[in-house]
Amino acid sequence: MRLALIGYGNVARALAHLLKQKRGEHPFVVTGAVTRRGYVMDPAGIPPDPVFVGTGCTVEAFLDECPCEVVVELTTLNPVDGEPAVSHIRAAMDRGKHVVTANKGPVACAYRELREKAAARGVQFLHEAVVMDGTPVFNLMRHTLAGVKVLGIAGVLNSTSQIVLGAMLRGLPFEEGVAEARRLGIAEADPWYDVEGWDSACKAAALANVLMDAGVTPGEVDRKGITRLTPERLAELEAKGKRVALVSRAHRGREGVKLRVRAEVLERDDVLAGGNGRRSVLVLETDLMGQVGVFSVGSQVEQTAYGVYADLLEVARISGGV
Amino acid sequence: MRLALIGYGNVARALAHLLKQKRGEHPFVVTGAVTRRGYVMDPAGIPPDPVFVGTGCTVEAFLDECPCEVVVELTTLNPVDGEPAVSHIRAAMDRGKHVVTANKGPVACAYRELREKAAARGVQFLHEAVVMDGTPVFNLMRHTLAGVKVLGIAGVLNSTSQIVLGAMLRGLPFEEGVAEARRLGIAEADPWYDVEGWDSACKAAALANVLMDAGVTPGEVDRKGITRLTPERLAELEAKGKRVALVSRAHRGREGVKLRVRAEVLERDDVLAGGNGRRSVLVLETDLMGQVGVFSVGSQVEQTAYGVYADLLEVARISGGV
Repeated sequence: MRLALIGYGNVARALAHLLKQKRGEHPFVVTGAVTRRGYVMDPAGIPPDPVFVGTGCTVEAFLDECPCEVVVELTTLNPVDGEPAVSHIRAAMDRGKHVVTANKGPVACAYRELREKAAARGVQFLHEAVVMDGTPVFNLMRHTLAGVKVLGIAGVLNSTSQIVLGAMLRGLPFEEGVAEARRLGIAEADPWYDVEGWDSACKAAALANVLMDAGVTPGEVDRKGITRLTPERLAELEAKGKRVALVSRAHRGREGVKLRVRAEVLERDDVLAGGNGRRSVLVLETDLMGQVGVFSVGSQVEQTAYGVYADLLEVARISGGV
Repeated sequence: MRLALIGYGNVARALAHLLKQKRGEHPFVVTGAVTRRGYVMDPAGIPPDPVFVGTGCTVEAFLDECPCEVVVELTTLNPVDGEPAVSHIRAAMDRGKHVVTANKGPVACAYRELREKAAARGVQFLHEAVVMDGTPVFNLMRHTLAGVKVLGIAGVLNSTSQIVLGAMLRGLPFEEGVAEARRLGIAEADPWYDVEGWDSACKAAALANVLMDAGVTPGEVDRKGITRLTPERLAELEAKGKRVALVSRAHRGREGVKLRVRAEVLERDDVLAGGNGRRSVLVLETDLMGQVGVFSVGSQVEQTAYGVYADLLEVARISGGV
């Protein structure tokens, strides 16, 4: 099966490495990639570290030319309207391509439209890596909890905030925590996006849109970040056996699904509280299965790439490809 | 799709209720059931609270007569050799029936043989409810973590031990904890089976057999229970920020997969430690996804029934039935 990549940053490079490692089992071929720096195209397959040429090529023109069955959208997130990724995905679907993305924006901002377009065009639209990297979240519901209804969602989903809170718990100032997250390669380009809860709001919207058919956007999430917390306050709470985490929540109320992001004070043995800043957790409140959840520890870009890879295997399985 | 049940205890009754509730979506029909008390059979479907007649009917004779595509094995566990459930499952497969079970014994004691027999007979052999009730464990690997290799397993999987440890942490004697687990309907018929780690050993063997192709039996698990612990010792550890849990572990060593069950002293915010005795947790150490896991809170017999139901949906999906 042939893949065209839009965006070529850390996740794309990790994906290229993983595809190479798994070539014996599943021979996907990356036939092209396009970024703001230019594009590269080769029906026989581009190398993992391609040289980009031909600046000025639009994504649409690239998609018209690049021979592929699947478009993998890996551009940088815009949490306000999900653009330009939403337009990229529309363009791919209009050309009859399956779409796999690790970009939160389209799922958080335009899920219903894209889900319906995919159905109308008869293509797959998969996005496992959008929340908790490669940990099964969307695929968990899709493949293993048949007939189960999600009534509510709670998750600790933003790594930078966890690192910052962990640093403050060790007595370091807020800015040191941000610097630590940057050194670890975890903080987004703009760390305020993480610590003010935008990333958590996007993930909450993505989860609620897919698992609860919420039809919301990140802007509709009642959102507060961790910027008002201090090492002193955290030490005070720790002495009482409490711990703080930036929690994304969704629940179905009378007037639709309500979403909230808050720095919550939790019992230290709460599944959302622990893990020394390295654990991402999602708890689903369900009808038939009560509370059930998934977690991952210390996820990095390789795990995001695995999430994309798992979706590619699923597209191949459904379409009989590879 | 028509189901024949072997064993008719709490799980079977909860399953009958769930099948009734979901009849509109998936019209499974239970055409018969057999227990030590007798059997009942009706091609049009038996009621959820059937009247058993005709004692002395063997399972084999029952299976020869009962019209069905799937046999659901729900008898009581025997952790030593998995009998008579293993023989029941062989008999069902020999008659070309798919098998779904919630009984740990066959998966812990005879997995390879049954997996191979199922493949040879062209039938399904599914067992999601064996570990962590309906929480996706086997289906998680089967359907959502394609290409991922399990290197090690750690889990807190026995509810009775958790209840007993929780009671002792509140200062109550061991026996009070056992009584509490009995009142909650959680303790097995023989609670020593739980507190001495046999249940945890069976679950460790089942997990390692399926997820790591270990080919072990519960008797090969290096096993110690929680019977030597006291309220005083737990209070002492709690004061140091530590907590005890009965942990099942498997890891791949030079000489195959090694399994161990121990009351382990853990940090209080360890994902295996928390949850006030109501959380079951499984952590998988993997190649591509690092540490990833699932948990459930306060699971009961309805969740075990859901695990069986999820397997029935899978059999129906694969065989094109229902």
